[in-house]
Amino acid sequence: MALIVQKYGGTSMGSVERIEHVARKVASFHQQGHQVVVVVSAMSGETDRLLKLAKAIDPKGSAREFDQIAATGEQVTIALLAIALQKMGVPSRSFTGWQVPIRTDDAHMKARIQKIEPEALLAACRAGIVPVVAGFQGITEDGSVSTLGRGGSDTTGVALAAALKADECQIYTDVDGVYTTDPRVEPKARRLNQITFEEMLEMASLGSKVLQIRSVEFAGKYKVPLRVLSTFVDGPGTLITLEDSKMEEPLISGIAFSRDESQITVTGVPDKPGVAAAILGPVGDANIEVDMIVQNVGADGTTDFTFTVSRGDHDKALAVIKKVAGELGAKGVAGATDIVKVSVVGVGMRSHAGIASQMFKALAAAGVNIRMISTSEIKISVVIDEMYLELAVRTLHKAFGLEEARTA
Amino acid sequence: MALIVQKYGGTSMGSVERIEHVARKVASFHQQGHQVVVVVSAMSGETDRLLKLAKAIDPKGSAREFDQIAATGEQVTIALLAIALQKMGVPSRSFTGWQVPIRTDDAHMKARIQKIEPEALLAACRAGIVPVVAGFQGITEDGSVSTLGRGGSDTTGVALAAALKADECQIYTDVDGVYTTDPRVEPKARRLNQITFEEMLEMASLGSKVLQIRSVEFAGKYKVPLRVLSTFVDGPGTLITLEDSKMEEPLISGIAFSRDESQITVTGVPDKPGVAAAILGPVGDANIEVDMIVQNVGADGTTDFTFTVSRGDHDKALAVIKKVAGELGAKGVAGATDIVKVSVVGVGMRSHAGIASQMFKALAAAGVNIRMISTSEIKISVVIDEMYLELAVRTLHKAFGLEEARTA
Repeated sequence: MALIVQKYGGTSMGSVERIEHVARKVASFHQQGHQVVVVVSAMSGETDRLLKLAKAIDPKGSAREFDQIAATGEQVTIALLAIALQKMGVPSRSFTGWQVPIRTDDAHMKARIQKIEPEALLAACRAGIVPVVAGFQGITEDGSVSTLGRGGSDTTGVALAAALKADECQIYTDVDGVYTTDPRVEPKARRLNQITFEEMLEMASLGSKVLQIRSVEFAGKYKVPLRVLSTFVDGPGTLITLEDSKMEEPLISGIAFSRDESQITVTGVPDKPGVAAAILGPVGDANIEVDMIVQNVGADGTTDFTFTVSRGDHDKALAVIKKVAGELGAKGVAGATDIVKVSVVGVGMRSHAGIASQMFKALAAAGVNIRMISTSEIKISVVIDEMYLELAVRTLHKAFGLEEARTA
Repeated sequence: MALIVQKYGGTSMGSVERIEHVARKVASFHQQGHQVVVVVSAMSGETDRLLKLAKAIDPKGSAREFDQIAATGEQVTIALLAIALQKMGVPSRSFTGWQVPIRTDDAHMKARIQKIEPEALLAACRAGIVPVVAGFQGITEDGSVSTLGRGGSDTTGVALAAALKADECQIYTDVDGVYTTDPRVEPKARRLNQITFEEMLEMASLGSKVLQIRSVEFAGKYKVPLRVLSTFVDGPGTLITLEDSKMEEPLISGIAFSRDESQITVTGVPDKPGVAAAILGPVGDANIEVDMIVQNVGADGTTDFTFTVSRGDHDKALAVIKKVAGELGAKGVAGATDIVKVSVVGVGMRSHAGIASQMFKALAAAGVNIRMISTSEIKISVVIDEMYLELAVRTLHKAFGLEEARTA
């Protein structure tokens, strides 16, 4: 008799037949006596189709209007799933973001959830109704429709689970769990039975596309047990947990990578206090997320400053930086979009020295040149040329023994 | 410096190019200093595509969920048009039904507008912004999305014009005005420069598809000057006016017809008070609109009762009636869907006797058999077999001299 939030992605909602399949899964939980709240994405490809229409008119059109359009994708699937559930005798009702309501800030196309008012959903649950909620969307203070950005439906699922104090948030997708790395790049990749929130956070933020990063942050912050599993294949999936100290942790739990990287370098900046802020402030103001930041001191009292942003933000960031560079008296600005990031992730590396040198040695032996390095407590990332991606991932997967069964 | 509400239909919004064409038309009015509020339909075919998805799951699915789905069609086009206007330098903002808000009753899929709160739209106009409003939709008291039924965007346009006290409501469509009859059936059909609300009401309700009937009712009730004109061909269109007694009215202004007719007959009903109510009450309760009603007294103290409904409601109405017929002790129930209605319409017939006999004589001479007759002050309708439709329309068009120029 648990309260479960289930989130189904675009592939799971991709056709009438698949929606009926999802309805049978939901109905089965409902008939076991569980309270189920469902969150769904748009049919796969639909959001792209809608935004393509808008971009055909103006690629730089108003983000508010883009959101107005994109949000219709989920508005269709929630109602289709509610109809399918009703047909199976399960009382159901669809809820758009504004009907819940899910309140967000007004950063259109990458809005953040500020507050979910759970009363309407809880009332539906008490009445035996399965609410089907639109993922990816919300409503701003001025009553506009907002979207959370790509992958935002996961965040909606976890945020709802937190607001409803759900027992578990299940993320159904087209893979059956979290893997040590992408099996398309390394066929020896292995499904993990569980992974900590911190590791998952690094894996997700580094481009393992299973879960959207903000959903994992949310889940960790509100201690929502999160499970990733397949819509199409039955199985336990991967449980994402708070750290369990009883386990014998391996050093490394996975190799993550991201192709969606680009680099911007400002050369010959006068080396004085406030330079980093002067460069990155306008980038942040333009709502561009910066990932890695590296600064090297030069010989002549100037410094070179490099940072990475997603490829979609590259041109916008470059334009911002060119303006700033002039004001700062920098020598030049250069961009690169043919780069990728590869990372080793694991809570075990906290208590083990030498992971970094083991990583760099393995890459060097394979002839992979490293452009940038960034480290945190539980991950080490390198930026390399895109052509070396597969080689680097396979080399590291083997170097850290990830093809063998994990002790757990 | 007028306030104009312009409504563009699905054909006008049928592609990115057409939306840009509409944007140029709107921008031109805006640049002349007029305040413009735009109402749009979904892209042609889109509402059908969406409802087909829902019907693939359950043809008898919840009307609330069907509305949730159908309303997305306009949510896309309002934002596309707003983006196109902004690109041309015209400040614009899209409004869904709930964002206006347009409040309706909860008769999903055929809701009626109860109240429009015009403050947000007027504030936008004052700020020099062109609001683009979703036609066909609104919000119910419990916060659900509702739709007004097919053609409802016209009603939205007129209701908005009334709420905003607009100077004119312009309905842009793919025809350049109101014709004496459908030119596809009678090539000699002629565009009318103007027509009265009452005539238009009869023409629209009888199936001249130019305007949706409720929009004309609204326009007449709130005295909103209404103009029908073409999106694609410049011209004055047809102005729909209050009756102008200075004009020399012709007898008949047009021949209307409707293919969307079906007939239900209850035979051998005991002829006693309350029978009509007992038959039609449950039909009304099922939210089915009844059009013509004919009752004949039989010889044996029983009566035959016939009425017409739209073909989409035929099966539903037949099911309701079969139940009622049993309770009433009727002899039998019969339905027919291969029938059509043809009508002559004109305010002039008020002061001229003999129109009916002229009409029946012309039909008889052409060999058209009449199944039912119904009359009002300004129209005479007959129900005939579908196979006679074209013959009847052409015969009447000629009999009443409609191919000649109207005196005005």
